[in-house]
Amino acid sequence: MLNDDRFFSPDPQVKNIARDLYEKIKDYPILSPHGHVEAELFANNQPFPDPAQLIIVPDHYVFRMLYSQGIDMQEMGVPTIDGTPTEADSRKIWKKFAEHFYLFAGTPTGLWLNHELKEVFDVQVKLSAETAMEVYDRILEKLNLPEFLPRALFKKFNIEVLSTTNGATDDLNDHKKIKDSGWGGRIIPCFRPDDVTNLNMENWTENIKTLAQITEINIHDYNSFIKAIEQQRINFKKMGATSTDHGVDDAYTHKLSRQEADTIFQRALKGESDETDAKKFTAHMLMELARMSLEDGLVMQIHPGSYRNHNHLVFDRFGRDKGADIPVRMEFTRNLYELLNKYGNHPDFTLVVFTLDESTYSRELAPLAGHYPAMRLGPSWWFFDSIQGMIYQRQKTFEIANVYNFVGFIDDTRAYPSIPARHDLSRRVDSDYLANLVARHILDMEDAERMAKALAYDLSKKAYKL
Amino acid sequence: MLNDDRFFSPDPQVKNIARDLYEKIKDYPILSPHGHVEAELFANNQPFPDPAQLIIVPDHYVFRMLYSQGIDMQEMGVPTIDGTPTEADSRKIWKKFAEHFYLFAGTPTGLWLNHELKEVFDVQVKLSAETAMEVYDRILEKLNLPEFLPRALFKKFNIEVLSTTNGATDDLNDHKKIKDSGWGGRIIPCFRPDDVTNLNMENWTENIKTLAQITEINIHDYNSFIKAIEQQRINFKKMGATSTDHGVDDAYTHKLSRQEADTIFQRALKGESDETDAKKFTAHMLMELARMSLEDGLVMQIHPGSYRNHNHLVFDRFGRDKGADIPVRMEFTRNLYELLNKYGNHPDFTLVVFTLDESTYSRELAPLAGHYPAMRLGPSWWFFDSIQGMIYQRQKTFEIANVYNFVGFIDDTRAYPSIPARHDLSRRVDSDYLANLVARHILDMEDAERMAKALAYDLSKKAYKL
Amino acid sequence: MLNDDRFFSPDPQVKNIARDLYEKIKDYPILSPHGHVEAELFANNQPFPDPAQLIIVPDHYVFRMLYSQGIDMQEMGVPTIDGTPTEADSRKIWKKFAEHFYLFAGTPTGLWLNHELKEVFDVQVKLSAETAMEVYDRILEKLNLPEFLPRALFKKFNIEVLSTTNGATDDLNDHKKIKDSGWGGRIIPCFRPDDVTNLNMENWTENIKTLAQITEINIHDYNSFIKAIEQQRINFKKMGATSTDHGVDDAYTHKLSRQEADTIFQRALKGESDETDAKKFTAHMLMELARMSLEDGLVMQIHPGSYRNHNHLVFDRFGRDKGADIPVRMEFTRNLYELLNKYGNHPDFTLVVFTLDESTYSRELAPLAGHYPAMRLGPSWWFFDSIQGMIYQRQKTFEIANVYNFVGFIDDTRAYPSIPARHDLSRRVDSDYLANLVARHILDMEDAERMAKALAYDLSKKAYKL
Repeated sequence: MLNDDRFFSPDPQVKNIARDLYEKIKDYPILSPHGHVEAELFANNQPFPDPAQLIIVPDHYVFRMLYSQGIDMQEMGVPTIDGTPTEADSRKIWKKFAEHFYLFAGTPTGLWLNHELKEVFDVQVKLSAETAMEVYDRILEKLNLPEFLPRALFKKFNIEVLSTTNGATDDLNDHKKIKDSGWGGRIIPCFRPDDVTNLNMENWTENIKTLAQITEINIHDYNSFIKAIEQQRINFKKMGATSTDHGVDDAYTHKLSRQEADTIFQRALKGESDETDAKKFTAHMLMELARMSLEDGLVMQIHPGSYRNHNHLVFDRFGRDKGADIPVRMEFTRNLYELLNKYGNHPDFTLVVFTLDESTYSRELAPLAGHYPAMRLGPSWWFFDSIQGMIYQRQKTFEIANVYNFVGFIDDTRAYPSIPARHDLSRRVDSDYLANLVARHILDMEDAERMAKALAYDLSKKAYKL
Repeated sequence: MLNDDRFFSPDPQVKNIARDLYEKIKDYPILSPHGHVEAELFANNQPFPDPAQLIIVPDHYVFRMLYSQGIDMQEMGVPTIDGTPTEADSRKIWKKFAEHFYLFAGTPTGLWLNHELKEVFDVQVKLSAETAMEVYDRILEKLNLPEFLPRALFKKFNIEVLSTTNGATDDLNDHKKIKDSGWGGRIIPCFRPDDVTNLNMENWTENIKTLAQITEINIHDYNSFIKAIEQQRINFKKMGATSTDHGVDDAYTHKLSRQEADTIFQRALKGESDETDAKKFTAHMLMELARMSLEDGLVMQIHPGSYRNHNHLVFDRFGRDKGADIPVRMEFTRNLYELLNKYGNHPDFTLVVFTLDESTYSRELAPLAGHYPAMRLGPSWWFFDSIQGMIYQRQKTFEIANVYNFVGFIDDTRAYPSIPARHDLSRRVDSDYLANLVARHILDMEDAERMAKALAYDLSKKAYKL
Repeated sequence: MLNDDRFFSPDPQVKNIARDLYEKIKDYPILSPHGHVEAELFANNQPFPDPAQLIIVPDHYVFRMLYSQGIDMQEMGVPTIDGTPTEADSRKIWKKFAEHFYLFAGTPTGLWLNHELKEVFDVQVKLSAETAMEVYDRILEKLNLPEFLPRALFKKFNIEVLSTTNGATDDLNDHKKIKDSGWGGRIIPCFRPDDVTNLNMENWTENIKTLAQITEINIHDYNSFIKAIEQQRINFKKMGATSTDHGVDDAYTHKLSRQEADTIFQRALKGESDETDAKKFTAHMLMELARMSLEDGLVMQIHPGSYRNHNHLVFDRFGRDKGADIPVRMEFTRNLYELLNKYGNHPDFTLVVFTLDESTYSRELAPLAGHYPAMRLGPSWWFFDSIQGMIYQRQKTFEIANVYNFVGFIDDTRAYPSIPARHDLSRRVDSDYLANLVARHILDMEDAERMAKALAYDLSKKAYKL
């Protein structure tokens, strides 16, 4: 089912070069410097319940596609927040999924899952309506074995380091528990304070209170808020954090005067801030967070441009992160102007920028990253973390920014057992992409090998200070 | 002249797979659920006058390209509306066209025409200055034969159903005539009420009067206007319509209160509405038309983003649809928000969205179609209905939205005898695209065959309820 | 080091066709109708000082990439304007560059330089830390030979005509000197009056004075300003100019009344004009410059969309053109509306449009050029003058606008000895691109050969009236 040469060009010359390159990088340890696997998984190290609860229910990549073809999320067992009943029979869920698995043919989710089924769970048949329950039983049997516990898989997957993503209101107790357990796996947090920097966030006031509690700082004005943020960064660093992340509507950066920032913050504390306040405050906080990064050495990431919770019916019934986040047009040249002018020339600052608007790759991001020493490009993200998406990003940027202004591959996943599949796919696509260039005498093998290694391992290690 | 393997990759492995896939789909009947061939053609079933009047004079794809290279439209016999004389000698027109046919090498128009000349008219030479009149005579000879009458060709072309596009002011008499004739060809109308929903349309007032007359509804306010629209939809359905279409400046959707809608409508009736009124009214009517579609089951299509009649000199002399419609930047995530939130979750509603802005494929349209059950993607449209245009759309969307959220190929043509060429080209491009994926072990043959069939036939049939 | 089949597809069938096409066009003389080589070079015909001063110090393509990876421009010997010391030891500069030359692998700069080293300077080793000084010495030795003087290279490079780019304030003395020298090389100027049409330009007032001096016209109002511009166009034409060029923020065109233009101009003379004035005046001047082009026959070029001097630290220390110009989003359909409606139908006017926003290729530029007789498309520009950049432009435009609405290849370079490399790369990419179409039976050889020749030579010759 998994061809050894999968994803390589059929041209024999290219395929041979691709094989050689892939052979050199396929066994590098996995660096996962950004993603959404929970620390709790490793803190508790409990068996995964069953195939449906492992693979379908938590993965919005899976159920959004089924939903688009008319299959209700309740049928997929997605938990509701409005009390509507949801399917609890995991076998039923799995059956329905398998019947519609043809929808995923050629999509990243499909490719990852095929790899996962074969390489992780040793499934030898193609998933379909006919094989559904056979596959289910095979996985279930494995999940009960000790070598399928999260920590055991961590070793099997050859993961060197895995970063979780945590809000400013997170007490990092699961990370402490892992550290205290004496287990050697390197699980580190990433500081993502959207829950307190985004004034539009539901529960913002509550989040501020939680942050105050955790940091033991009385947050009553902008100054104390900044202090609490800085304190949490120290706490995160203690747990191994090397980076921060910021999910923002757009990449607009603009410093306010301390007084103006305070005025807005006070309005927010009273629940009186509006859209303009929120936009300004986010722009300002990106400047402040860059300053902090320069001071404490945490690498700064920006993930902008997703219109969250586009579908209210889905949001009201199921909550956030249910496949209804839709990209919008982005602008970076003007929006990052202020931040890059203030911090972009500094050798001790690293800003990793992601985009969901592919038209910005060549027009804005590659030229910016090909100039500012502090700026690095994130890999193709989310909807674009696919074979064509990866190839397209490489075509649009490698010649302009050069490979070494990238941060290598990032899996950014919630689906723990899909991690090896994702890195393998990326390594294969890179091997093939570079092999094409070698076959066309655009690169020689020496340069291609250096690039392949960089993309698989070196660039992540360096950019994220791992 | 027409190689059996045309448009397939030269790689032998890919080519063989492409052949296999193409073999499986090439003989499917043609579904043409959207286009601009006139019903009159089949109602009257008269011979086409001559090659120039058939191929050049009515096709703005042809004369806009010649015009761009300095050949006046009058030389091509394009009828003027300002009384300027135009070439009437079809042989002269054809000669000039043939001399410049090299301009079309590698363009869709050129490829379609090569297919049409060979497969429909049995022309065995390459069209050029030298062969011009030989080709002309060959075609002319054929056009006089009974098997080249429109209805005979319909059968020869293996068309299962063909939809015309008709304004709200159309009395559908030609469709009635076809029905009454007892001829078995399925020609159905599509309801495109831009002539009355777009307040900026020249003759809007007159169009409202015509609509009132046809529907026998006294249109004196917004309510009676809506009733007339609904009545015309019933009339269209009686003639077999399964869809509506809306050519709008942008995709903005927003419901007005009934009172606000009426106020604008009244202003328009008095000839006092302005740009803002027109924009709001269109946004509102899209909401209303979606509601009607949900109620009466007509599939709703949106074709937005063309700046019509960009060249005033051409417009004043020749009128509309003369190759001077130029795309503008589009936005869908925010603009379709209201419509999709109100109707996009409904299993009985289908919205097919097209774009002339390729940057929206992966950024907005594929993520939206990969989530909302009611939304489907139209194929690459107009300027993008070309080999590279099709490949690009597939690269940008198949992995994100999956193939089954498309509606398959739509020829959208005014050039009746080019229909088989267009569908054949599309089936070849799909076969080759999927073959590449099979050769790279991204798809297996089972999935590829299912997709090829879906794109050639099944998806259109289902989405357009044919 | 330079494979004979470089940049061609590995597929044997495509490669063979590519070779045939390339063979037919590789020896055409070079037309360089737009670029930034200085006339002074040929006026003085002095030896180039050394490899670093020739290849690194003047080329922002080179040092911006090094800067992005943390190598200071001072280390590269880039001259400062604020008195900061800069590296003066060319051997040191070269050494550092060679150590980091791997950063350029696969980038256009790297490919051009490999060609230049081998073909111009007969270097037989790969540039690296190890070979750095060997290569340096090899080049240096050559630079002292008479056959490496600028005029000798002009002949060796087989350049038929080379256009410099000159401000409205240029007295063209170097061009006069070349003409007076009796040397046969055809070096012509291109009129780029941004220095006086852009009211935001530093030194604008001074520039106006210089223009007045050169033209001997007392510039005291808008009328006399226009007269001076027209006079300078006559002066440029005397030195052989066939074109003008306009580097503008965006492509907005809009004619002001003579009075409004004068009011703004008077404000500018008093140093009182603002951003809005500058924007309006530029839009107006594009209309005026188009009128002049129609009258005097100079081909008009527009190069819009670069956000100049994005990095203030770099600007303050090193000045303009230091790799910190970043593209911004462009719009052409609406912005060129007025200009194209007034002049775009005229057979005696030629407007060549470039873009740094690839999303406008298929959406706006190709449809416009595929309609308006006066409009032609420039080749992929600046960041996009790369193998993937060229392929992408061809994919996005050839089917829509057709090849003959292009102006062929333009090197647009400051790096004189890279000119043959750039044209060779372009001819190879075209040969390969067309060969792919031939192998897929989209083109036949007759059409492919005509296109290859057009792109290499004919189109430039015709569009630029060379």
